Amino acid sequence: MSAPTVEFFFDVGSPASYLAWRQLPRIAAETNAVIAFRPMLLGGVFKATGNASPVTVPAKGRWMTDDLQRWARRYGVAFGLNPNFPINTLTLMRGAAGMQMRHAERFVAYVDAIYRAMFELPRDLGDADVLVATLREAGFDPTGFAALVADPEVKARLIATTEEAVARGVFGAPTFFVGEDMFFGQDRLEFVREALLGQRTGAA
Amino acid sequence: MSAPTVEFFFDVGSPASYLAWRQLPRIAAETNAVIAFRPMLLGGVFKATGNASPVTVPAKGRWMTDDLQRWARRYGVAFGLNPNFPINTLTLMRGAAGMQMRHAERFVAYVDAIYRAMFELPRDLGDADVLVATLREAGFDPTGFAALVADPEVKARLIATTEEAVARGVFGAPTFFVGEDMFFGQDRLEFVREALLGQRTGAA
Repeated sequence: MSAPTVEFFFDVGSPASYLAWRQLPRIAAETNAVIAFRPMLLGGVFKATGNASPVTVPAKGRWMTDDLQRWARRYGVAFGLNPNFPINTLTLMRGAAGMQMRHAERFVAYVDAIYRAMFELPRDLGDADVLVATLREAGFDPTGFAALVADPEVKARLIATTEEAVARGVFGAPTFFVGEDMFFGQDRLEFVREALLGQRTGAA
Repeated sequence: MSAPTVEFFFDVGSPASYLAWRQLPRIAAETNAVIAFRPMLLGGVFKATGNASPVTVPAKGRWMTDDLQRWARRYGVAFGLNPNFPINTLTLMRGAAGMQMRHAERFVAYVDAIYRAMFELPRDLGDADVLVATLREAGFDPTGFAALVADPEVKARLIATTEEAVARGVFGAPTFFVGEDMFFGQDRLEFVREALLGQRTGAA
């Protein structure tokens, strides 16, 4: 019996993706599933689909702050909405794509450090000095990181994943796929879990 | 100990509000809560807040169709997305506001008949003949209904509820309030239930 797979399309600037990042390992453990991490650029997805951040509707943005806190409490996850939100995540997501391509063994540590700086501490990662300090604290060499995010193959990978996401119907983050079934939002993780259990049964 | 109250702001054109309409009585029964029905005009809410129907982003609209079907299956609720969607619900919502004002004992039967025609059968309620037939089948006199929805006080009530909703932070439907805590979406009914339980405990 092969392990079921959940593809996880995310951007480090998305607070709902952060909550999903913290919950998905537990769900994968409970369903014997493998997580396929798919770092994408949410800004690119918005541009391609005509979608926009919920905070562009002020009333929706205000409610979302409460809603995210409710979910964080339910999950027992530390969460502070970043006052610098929304930030441009291009460099950070190139970093995620690059880590996955060139330093796969450190990919999770990298995303974890960025998410922690973004939604736990929280810090202004749009400030280059703050990013350098954050990378150093997590054991990453800022010079190597600068080279990684300037690598044309890394840039191309992030673009390709973003384009693939849009082609498959993604319009926001986080988005999950179990086979061809798509689930949008960290608030759909229960459906993701059921799909993984169904796939496991189906493959038995 | 007084019964906790959940305010339910809804529009009959909203499929997620329909799912909430079908689930809320069960939650109210389980929590000994009272439902305060607040018919509002979703189009007016969108206009006032700058929000828009999710279907205005085509990729989001496609996913929502799947998502609503998943929830309907989970709830065991008959659901067919109306092919005439989105429709102008002004007359229908004036009807809801009017029933609540002038024929409170038939309010639930009216909304139920409209929701059934909208999302179970489904029918094109934008067609006047179809609406008349739907009203007749549910035991409502179409002539009386026409007078009701033309009543200036009824029109004013719908406007007032819509304006109140916007003033309190509503940007979409369904929206629930338990005290001053706001919950958006039928997918937040579990939080609504918890809030009702908390309010009951708090008041004990």
